Amino acid sequence: MTMYVSVSRLKVERTKVPELIEAFRDRSGLVESAAGFIDLQVWLSDRDPGEVWMVSRWRDRTNFTAYMKSEAHARSHDRIAPEVSGAINLERLEHLQSAFEVVAE
Amino acid sequence: MTMYVSVSRLKVERTKVPELIEAFRDRSGLVESAAGFIDLQVWLSDRDPGEVWMVSRWRDRTNFTAYMKSEAHARSHDRIAPEVSGAINLERLEHLQSAFEVVAE
Repeated sequence: MTMYVSVSRLKVERTKVPELIEAFRDRSGLVESAAGFIDLQVWLSDRDPGEVWMVSRWRDRTNFTAYMKSEAHARSHDRIAPEVSGAINLERLEHLQSAFEVVAE
Repeated sequence: MTMYVSVSRLKVERTKVPELIEAFRDRSGLVESAAGFIDLQVWLSDRDPGEVWMVSRWRDRTNFTAYMKSEAHARSHDRIAPEVSGAINLERLEHLQSAFEVVAE
């Protein structure tokens, strides 16, 4: 199975990281209902404690772009508390295609 | 479940990408037997067709570092054909901790 992967690299003030993770845990869950959504993980850099990666996997690019343009995505973002969203800088946004299937689970 | 994630960003000549993927498909499979190994994916950048990410997930950092020092890891690398390994530049190596569990599958 091929996948489409979106990686958002966020830089936040170190002290805001727990709030950001809490915001993910407490999120609306709208993305889970999006067509083609597989999973979402939040990764913390070992080297830089203020670097947070949001990694979402999708069946294909079309599913991902449809979600990005959706009302559900807009609503998800609107829910983020201003003091959290104000502390987030989107450093880099990368999109990748998985070249082959997951080999083991 | 928390995880430990290793991301190797490789730059290869664009023409070598199919060989590199083929080398992964045809690999020894030694990593699959390593303690704490979860899965491995190869991701291709949408923007740069010569950028390849190897993403492996582990139960924890200790499992990952033990594998990196193992005979199995050395043997896996020895199997890479010289014309492929000569074309690979390790651009960046990043290690991350997943902050919370996979939310959906």
